[in-house]
Amino acid sequence: MIGIGVVGYGYWGPNLVRNFMETSSATVISVCDQDQDKLDLVQKRYPTIIPTLNFTDLLSNPAVDAIVIATPVRSHYELALQALKADKHVLIEKPMAETSEQTAHLVAEAEQRGLTLMVDHTFIYTGAVRKLKELVETGELGKINYYDSSRINLGLFQHDVDVIWDLAVHDISILGFVLGEFPNRVSATGASHVPGMVENTAYITLFYESGTIAHVNVNWLSPVKMRSTVVGGDKKMVVYDDLEPSEKIKIYDKGVTVTDDPEQIYQMRVGYRTGDMLAPNVPSTEALLVEAEHFVDCIVTKKTPITSGKMGHEVVKIVEAATASMKQFGQPVSLLP
Amino acid sequence: MIGIGVVGYGYWGPNLVRNFMETSSATVISVCDQDQDKLDLVQKRYPTIIPTLNFTDLLSNPAVDAIVIATPVRSHYELALQALKADKHVLIEKPMAETSEQTAHLVAEAEQRGLTLMVDHTFIYTGAVRKLKELVETGELGKINYYDSSRINLGLFQHDVDVIWDLAVHDISILGFVLGEFPNRVSATGASHVPGMVENTAYITLFYESGTIAHVNVNWLSPVKMRSTVVGGDKKMVVYDDLEPSEKIKIYDKGVTVTDDPEQIYQMRVGYRTGDMLAPNVPSTEALLVEAEHFVDCIVTKKTPITSGKMGHEVVKIVEAATASMKQFGQPVSLLP
Amino acid sequence: MIGIGVVGYGYWGPNLVRNFMETSSATVISVCDQDQDKLDLVQKRYPTIIPTLNFTDLLSNPAVDAIVIATPVRSHYELALQALKADKHVLIEKPMAETSEQTAHLVAEAEQRGLTLMVDHTFIYTGAVRKLKELVETGELGKINYYDSSRINLGLFQHDVDVIWDLAVHDISILGFVLGEFPNRVSATGASHVPGMVENTAYITLFYESGTIAHVNVNWLSPVKMRSTVVGGDKKMVVYDDLEPSEKIKIYDKGVTVTDDPEQIYQMRVGYRTGDMLAPNVPSTEALLVEAEHFVDCIVTKKTPITSGKMGHEVVKIVEAATASMKQFGQPVSLLP
Amino acid sequence: MIGIGVVGYGYWGPNLVRNFMETSSATVISVCDQDQDKLDLVQKRYPTIIPTLNFTDLLSNPAVDAIVIATPVRSHYELALQALKADKHVLIEKPMAETSEQTAHLVAEAEQRGLTLMVDHTFIYTGAVRKLKELVETGELGKINYYDSSRINLGLFQHDVDVIWDLAVHDISILGFVLGEFPNRVSATGASHVPGMVENTAYITLFYESGTIAHVNVNWLSPVKMRSTVVGGDKKMVVYDDLEPSEKIKIYDKGVTVTDDPEQIYQMRVGYRTGDMLAPNVPSTEALLVEAEHFVDCIVTKKTPITSGKMGHEVVKIVEAATASMKQFGQPVSLLP
Repeated sequence: MIGIGVVGYGYWGPNLVRNFMETSSATVISVCDQDQDKLDLVQKRYPTIIPTLNFTDLLSNPAVDAIVIATPVRSHYELALQALKADKHVLIEKPMAETSEQTAHLVAEAEQRGLTLMVDHTFIYTGAVRKLKELVETGELGKINYYDSSRINLGLFQHDVDVIWDLAVHDISILGFVLGEFPNRVSATGASHVPGMVENTAYITLFYESGTIAHVNVNWLSPVKMRSTVVGGDKKMVVYDDLEPSEKIKIYDKGVTVTDDPEQIYQMRVGYRTGDMLAPNVPSTEALLVEAEHFVDCIVTKKTPITSGKMGHEVVKIVEAATASMKQFGQPVSLLP
Repeated sequence: MIGIGVVGYGYWGPNLVRNFMETSSATVISVCDQDQDKLDLVQKRYPTIIPTLNFTDLLSNPAVDAIVIATPVRSHYELALQALKADKHVLIEKPMAETSEQTAHLVAEAEQRGLTLMVDHTFIYTGAVRKLKELVETGELGKINYYDSSRINLGLFQHDVDVIWDLAVHDISILGFVLGEFPNRVSATGASHVPGMVENTAYITLFYESGTIAHVNVNWLSPVKMRSTVVGGDKKMVVYDDLEPSEKIKIYDKGVTVTDDPEQIYQMRVGYRTGDMLAPNVPSTEALLVEAEHFVDCIVTKKTPITSGKMGHEVVKIVEAATASMKQFGQPVSLLP
Repeated sequence: MIGIGVVGYGYWGPNLVRNFMETSSATVISVCDQDQDKLDLVQKRYPTIIPTLNFTDLLSNPAVDAIVIATPVRSHYELALQALKADKHVLIEKPMAETSEQTAHLVAEAEQRGLTLMVDHTFIYTGAVRKLKELVETGELGKINYYDSSRINLGLFQHDVDVIWDLAVHDISILGFVLGEFPNRVSATGASHVPGMVENTAYITLFYESGTIAHVNVNWLSPVKMRSTVVGGDKKMVVYDDLEPSEKIKIYDKGVTVTDDPEQIYQMRVGYRTGDMLAPNVPSTEALLVEAEHFVDCIVTKKTPITSGKMGHEVVKIVEAATASMKQFGQPVSLLP
Repeated sequence: MIGIGVVGYGYWGPNLVRNFMETSSATVISVCDQDQDKLDLVQKRYPTIIPTLNFTDLLSNPAVDAIVIATPVRSHYELALQALKADKHVLIEKPMAETSEQTAHLVAEAEQRGLTLMVDHTFIYTGAVRKLKELVETGELGKINYYDSSRINLGLFQHDVDVIWDLAVHDISILGFVLGEFPNRVSATGASHVPGMVENTAYITLFYESGTIAHVNVNWLSPVKMRSTVVGGDKKMVVYDDLEPSEKIKIYDKGVTVTDDPEQIYQMRVGYRTGDMLAPNVPSTEALLVEAEHFVDCIVTKKTPITSGKMGHEVVKIVEAATASMKQFGQPVSLLP
């Protein structure tokens, strides 16, 4: 039985606690938060969990094997580092930390100590995203031409991270997982519409060695909510709409065919193909439960998590580059080593 | 009665002929095309129209007061110039020409001769876009924060112009009309997914002096069709969906409010406001008929067209800059004089 | 080459003329209408067609092999009877006539003379309805439990026929075609909401020997337009939405399974099955062209039309019974012979 | 502080307990269920609540002022009667009981003892239904022509009540509340498609003295979920879609106008009017919390609940009549006294 300590019981922490309580080979030992009201709430809900105001209590508790960090981004690095140094396995809410220097350091520390370091990129554990990866991996979609995502709503303004760090990070991690490839160049644009606040609207283009192009549209100031992605392959294309109650994934047997017919050389050389559309049944297990089980399994079996610290680090590198590009009105930033 | 000559009876020409035949103070005198089959079709449909294979027949026909150009983009400049030099008023299908040098020349030529020069930016004449302009002009939406458009479908590949010249040109003209402002900077990215073909996917960000940011997503290779635009004002926001059979314009009384409450200074300082949504009844008159009437009216009254040659020139300048930026992976291009 | 005479050039007549002009082995010889303006319009569009104010001109013209009737319902019987007596094949717009006595008479007359008698139930010739029939016939849906259709909009009020005769007739013909079975009982309710006018809202339930139940909701006074049908089989279920631009047919691999497990005997005995959804590509050929070709083919080869006079007669019998039930607040009316 | 006892902790009970725990002037004292596992769950969640296997414990507990019944329908009457006889106020889950004889008896018993008797018709307490009532009461919609509801899904089969008792009961209570009028006649049809099970598909038409017609389509065997109602007034019309995350209520300024123009007497006498559509912002407070507060308020102030026992009785009378009509294939059943 793996003992879990959770730090941060604000917006996301309660979901983490609830799911780790339901995980078969783990249990939550202690929860730390700086707000006594939050701790009272924990105790009312779970009388067996030890509430504490001091993070060091988690570190010194021998029953705590792993620490789950669900605090604001600016504290991720410091808390994770302390946890690793206390020989605890670590799961960090996304984004992993504020800089890629920090994330590189955490990866090195965990590696050196043989500890599991994982990042909570929850979407990777949904049935829909796993189906998307399967469609790409089996070659059903063919070569991936583009990935185009809109993730917009009248959203919770963050005051320490901008909309790229808050929302685009989802697509960047999904892209890493689904394509198995990281971009070599990024161009991003954006704007802040609330004086003194961080950017609330951003558009990011990612360029890949393979020729794939990815685009992510994120916005905290939209009157309508959208969570919609189009993935265009040269065999088939997919629309993934996370707001659909069922039929989140739709596979279109559509595309273009190029002719070499010399008769048509000066005319249109491209024809269209329109076939069936299939919406496969996708399991609707709660992603966070799948993820919690996976974290525990990685600790026990010492295997590398799907959303490893290394992957979280790559995501932060891309987000950093996108932010830099955004500050320069789209000036492309290289991601080559 | 204004006599109209039409050159080009391919995809769009028949719509132009049909609408000018229904325009009260104009009639189509002659149609020119290089394909005899097209001319036979014209004659079968409209026995009174003179078909011809030679463009010079339109120029030399004294009954032809104005020439409407609906040929491939590469021929726009040459045909329009000849028409103006023959003292004919000119309406050119969008985009106006291949370069801004050409469009500047056409504008100068028309001005010098006192002729009407207009570009067929059809969307400007739809009820929905005119309603959008009214909402902006009357201040109902407040300051415009952003304009975000998706114009994607499994589309007709063009082989002489890329997807920016084909589709984004619609949004760029709508933006000029609705905002009454042209951008000072552009960043664009894109890709070609069919070997040897022009770019079929592009993402364009336009920056405005006023702080407005506009984004246009165009794609010929999408499994689903979208013609959807979100316009975010600081008072209200609009979703304009051109594919909706009715309710093309939806006005959301939604937004954020910023607090200066010192108590909340370290917390979230942004609140949300959610009110009614109104879909105003928008007239559904065919845009091309409104446009044809407007062209004839401008010729008769010598007033400047809404979609003047000057405006068409500004649009081409932006499209040129966007294409240049796209070739450099988003490198921003200045549009300041 | 089959010569066609068309009587009635109002709302539907122009579509019939246009499609018969495009039919390979037929041509329209003459069009009759009581309104000279309509005839002028015909002549302008089709200089080769002979316009006439007198129906007898169609009857006496030896070049006219078949007469297509697109006049108000009250004149169908008289015109069709004259046409058959003049040895012309006949195609009648739906509904076939005002009473089943009339339709029976027309069927007998055509049979006796060996003439083709067909009713213009256009929906039968759409790709979507043919796909629906295929799904039922091949057993893919299993036993058909129900058919449930909503056909509502802010519609053209008719003043001689009520909403059942105008709209429900579509579903009743589709049901006859798809199920290959006619109902043995009908119950209908409805109301008129415009004083002095026929019923504009009606609800019809059809009971079948096989256990299938069908329901049709028709309404001329709805703020929104719907053309949506759910067909529930015990293996799969279909949603057919005629307003979808593509994906008109969606096949759901969903259903219930009944358990005989004695352990569960006092509990719920029904489980759920949820699988993929498939939207097959359905050909989008214009139904009226398919129908026109079929009519000509039936004349030439003497085979029985899919929407034969006999079928049109069965439809009228059901509509008659539904109207009678509606006048008595749902009192069921038997359709057994 | 009003003490609440809840009997039944199955599907709906937990929602009732949670909401009564949040109600300001009430608290849940004790929960009774026949299943010890359910009671363990209660105790884990709410350590202060007394769990019991015996209903008589609720009756004899002087701290229990009111009893909330969330058991299968067949036990409603007996439990409610015992509760009233023990001088407890009563809230019963819908439908109120199995027969109108039973519901009449309960109403009489409560009245005689001066106790509050209320039925849990939850939808009445939603923001959307209250907005609908407001639109009818203020006359904004004009005279109500029709109410047309579809309430279909792949649903939980009940084995003691059919789909009318399970689902149509929602619309019948909404109709009573919104129209303030009960029907004088009902016709219903339906079918069972699972051998040995109750009817899973039903269509009910309600006729009103005022001329309004209401129709309810309920189905447990639909591949898609719908909770959609159209209300047609002679001034405006409403679409109420309970599955819309926002914009549940849409008000269409659409309708027909009847002309008396003698010129048009033999033609169409009906014209169309198409105006704006408004989706008013509707409060999204949880209906069950509003209802719980209302129940407590009625007990304290002795006022009549909106969903009183009397109203629950009227609903059962209509459901009874609908079921009787359904058994006779739509034969209309009178609801006049």
